[in-house]
Amino acid sequence: MQPVAPLDLTFQALADPTRRTMVERLSRGPASVSELAEPLAMTLSAVVQHLAVLEASGLVRSQKAGRVRTCRIEPKALQAAERWISERRASWEHRLDRLGAFLAETEPKPRRRRKT
Amino acid sequence: MQPVAPLDLTFQALADPTRRTMVERLSRGPASVSELAEPLAMTLSAVVQHLAVLEASGLVRSQKAGRVRTCRIEPKALQAAERWISERRASWEHRLDRLGAFLAETEPKPRRRRKT
Repeated sequence: MQPVAPLDLTFQALADPTRRTMVERLSRGPASVSELAEPLAMTLSAVVQHLAVLEASGLVRSQKAGRVRTCRIEPKALQAAERWISERRASWEHRLDRLGAFLAETEPKPRRRRKT
Repeated sequence: MQPVAPLDLTFQALADPTRRTMVERLSRGPASVSELAEPLAMTLSAVVQHLAVLEASGLVRSQKAGRVRTCRIEPKALQAAERWISERRASWEHRLDRLGAFLAETEPKPRRRRKT
């Protein structure tokens, strides 16, 4: 078995709309599990399962104090995913730039009109 | 059944290391299916299956000319995924800024030493 790459887990976690809603909420600040569950039309147990996927991916961490579990965003995983995508974009844009330069170089020069 | 959001498909497609390798290759320029398959230790049929997932997600499109299918990156899906992540980061950084400002405002002022 190959080890699962962290990016696999991050993108997998982000592939679900409920989990994206939870990340969206946590990017505005920490929240308890019941605060996270409040806008979601599902059982608390389903929310806890989504939270487990988010924690396994490293996107979120949570801490229990007394009876309240507080969840926080863990920016590093999100940054790694953003970096992977932006590197692909940079590579793609670089190719377009070279293509543009090539086309400009090889373009036939317009003939000058002679003065009459 | 809920309709599947485009971001679900994009992140799902990116959650696999082989598919990320294919996107990486295509971000440097178009490639035929056999060129895509060349560095990958798997059957051509497995590569074609990964390609189908990438095409369904909108990250890649391909076109057949004669016997050769050429694959290209489709930057819009990648941009949408990048935008979603960077908006979360912006929201998270904004919160940190406000927190910093709050702490600076509420910090007890250091007492001035009297001149002797």
